[in-house]
Amino acid sequence: MARIVMKFGGTSVADIDRIRNVARHVKREVDAGHEVAVVVSAMSGKTNELVGWTKAADAMHDAREYDAVVASGEQVTSGLLAITLQSMGINARSWQGWQIPIHTDNSHGAARILEIDGSEIIKRMGEGQVAVVAGFQGLGPDNRIATLGRGGSDTSAVAIAAAVKADRCDIYTDVDGVYTTDPRIEPKARRLKKVGFEEMLEMASLGSKVLQVRSVELAMVFKVRTFVRSSFVDPDAPGMGDFLNPPGTLICDEEEIVEQEVVTGIAYAKDEAQISLRRVADRPGVSAAIFGPLAETHINVDMIVQNISEDGSRTDMTFTVPTGDLEKAQKVLEDQKDKVGFDVIQSESGLVKVSVIGVGMRSHAGVAATAFKALAEKGINIKAITTSEIKISILIDGAYGELAVRTLHSAYGLDKK
Amino acid sequence: MARIVMKFGGTSVADIDRIRNVARHVKREVDAGHEVAVVVSAMSGKTNELVGWTKAADAMHDAREYDAVVASGEQVTSGLLAITLQSMGINARSWQGWQIPIHTDNSHGAARILEIDGSEIIKRMGEGQVAVVAGFQGLGPDNRIATLGRGGSDTSAVAIAAAVKADRCDIYTDVDGVYTTDPRIEPKARRLKKVGFEEMLEMASLGSKVLQVRSVELAMVFKVRTFVRSSFVDPDAPGMGDFLNPPGTLICDEEEIVEQEVVTGIAYAKDEAQISLRRVADRPGVSAAIFGPLAETHINVDMIVQNISEDGSRTDMTFTVPTGDLEKAQKVLEDQKDKVGFDVIQSESGLVKVSVIGVGMRSHAGVAATAFKALAEKGINIKAITTSEIKISILIDGAYGELAVRTLHSAYGLDKK
Repeated sequence: MARIVMKFGGTSVADIDRIRNVARHVKREVDAGHEVAVVVSAMSGKTNELVGWTKAADAMHDAREYDAVVASGEQVTSGLLAITLQSMGINARSWQGWQIPIHTDNSHGAARILEIDGSEIIKRMGEGQVAVVAGFQGLGPDNRIATLGRGGSDTSAVAIAAAVKADRCDIYTDVDGVYTTDPRIEPKARRLKKVGFEEMLEMASLGSKVLQVRSVELAMVFKVRTFVRSSFVDPDAPGMGDFLNPPGTLICDEEEIVEQEVVTGIAYAKDEAQISLRRVADRPGVSAAIFGPLAETHINVDMIVQNISEDGSRTDMTFTVPTGDLEKAQKVLEDQKDKVGFDVIQSESGLVKVSVIGVGMRSHAGVAATAFKALAEKGINIKAITTSEIKISILIDGAYGELAVRTLHSAYGLDKK
Repeated sequence: MARIVMKFGGTSVADIDRIRNVARHVKREVDAGHEVAVVVSAMSGKTNELVGWTKAADAMHDAREYDAVVASGEQVTSGLLAITLQSMGINARSWQGWQIPIHTDNSHGAARILEIDGSEIIKRMGEGQVAVVAGFQGLGPDNRIATLGRGGSDTSAVAIAAAVKADRCDIYTDVDGVYTTDPRIEPKARRLKKVGFEEMLEMASLGSKVLQVRSVELAMVFKVRTFVRSSFVDPDAPGMGDFLNPPGTLICDEEEIVEQEVVTGIAYAKDEAQISLRRVADRPGVSAAIFGPLAETHINVDMIVQNISEDGSRTDMTFTVPTGDLEKAQKVLEDQKDKVGFDVIQSESGLVKVSVIGVGMRSHAGVAATAFKALAEKGINIKAITTSEIKISILIDGAYGELAVRTLHSAYGLDKK
């Protein structure tokens, strides 16, 4: 007997038939004797409809009103799932963020969860009641609804799991787990049985869309064992209710992964653009002068490469931004030209960033060399490199993106055996 | 400078363009220096969509979950109107029922408002902020959303008006006021300048669909001066902002109506069915034995006619029910036959109830006689009659319904001059 939080995304609750399917997944766990809380997203398409209306009313809308409008999507799903569970004879009730309450900070539209009082839900789960929690939302310090930003229901689920001290948080999605790379690019990609929190964090932020980054951060901090699994499998198929070994990918503490591979997966991010500032004055404060204004304009800067200058006076600074932000970024930098003191801006768009990820890198030498050699053999030119403890990111021409992913996947022995 | 509550129904907020039109009505009153609270319904069609989903999930759904789902419609509109007002430079914020809070009883799906704390809204209106209140909903004693039943936003508006001590409650709707009768039946129908609360109560419950009955009851109890007016007129048309004499119909205390007509209007209700129980035992408790079981089966009994029995032992009992409930009612009565002790049930469906309404009747003799004479002249046979202090209701064959309405409208001098 365990305590489980189950989270279902928008495509899993898109209509009443699918909500009924979700209810069958819940029933399976209840019948197995587990205490269950369910976190739901809005029916797929609903959030976009609601967001569209707020934009039509005013493109520069008040984030607090946006939250009141958009949070209604999850409110609807939570009520409908509670009704459906009840129709199957399961004791269930819906919980809105303000009822629990899930306390957030005041950053409406992208709020962070501060604290959840799990006591009432724990008590009721102990009495056999399933808690159906509206995801994506909480209550701000102003007593108004605050939403967590797109994909926030994953974060809600992990936070609820931490608050009720769940044994596991199952994220049901339209994929059946986390793969060594995108199977649409490399059909030989394998589903991973386990991934460490840090690795998943790199994968999530590098374009693997399975989980929201903040949910993984939260899972890491509170050590919430998180399963990624499919909601589209028959809820009563063999093995679906196997508590110790369910189908899917477990995201867990590194130490729980006994046979650690050196490299866990290959991630990639499309539509990157590179900006190089040539002959930047090499003095304190210059980085702040470049990246401060970009941050204020909400341009997300990713890879940053700065080399040691030849003569100690001037250096080149290279970094990447999403292609869609390139023009805006160039404008911001031109405005800063005198302050920063550079010669010229060069840029290139349509690039791809390919990343090799694995906690095993920490203890293995030569991991990067394998990547460089493999890419060289295919004639793929490397434009920039950055590395962290568990990741090597390589910027290349967009035309070679898929080839690079397949090449690296094979070079690190990740192909299906 | 006054304090005004404005209420807009579903068709008035059906899309962003109409919401913008509503905002212009609000702006007109704000610009005139008034303190304004706005109560909104769900966008037209939304409530039906939400109700449909709860039914699809389970026809016998939990009313508390129904409330969580269905109340989301008004939540969306309140946020969208607040955004639209802000875009016009008006200080505004949305309020959900649980935020004010509007305390209700525990009758989920058809809750009654118990108490509203208007202090925060009054304070903010004083600071120039428009309160946009989600109609139709409040907070039950179980800390869950409770809805007031269909049409409940009218009741929300009047209750808010009472709580904030508003000078007036303007109900904006798709008609421009209350008419002496349905203009689709009698094109000579006149719009009334003023109607007494009690008269409006009779009109509302007799099939004139302008206002929800409970909102009129509430307005009467708290003496809320309530205007019925059109939201589809150009918000800035001449006279729209006239505080003392706006276009529309004022529902107010009888004493405020100086030149009281004897008859105010002619209401009618279609699809009535008549049931007659012949030779019912004339003894105490027999009415309870008939109407108790009907009430338990949620059959709405309307006109009840019982005549004094000829010999003191047996009498005839006649009453009406909606045609749709006739079969069920007959079944219930047959089951009670031994207990009630009647000879035979006779029934007829497809009838119409025409009612003559006016507080002036109290002090005028011969009002009923005028009706009987006028109908007789057209050869319309009267099946049953009931009267109250301010109303005469006449049951006739459905085929003569519209003719009867026009005949009475003319007989009491209500036709447009």
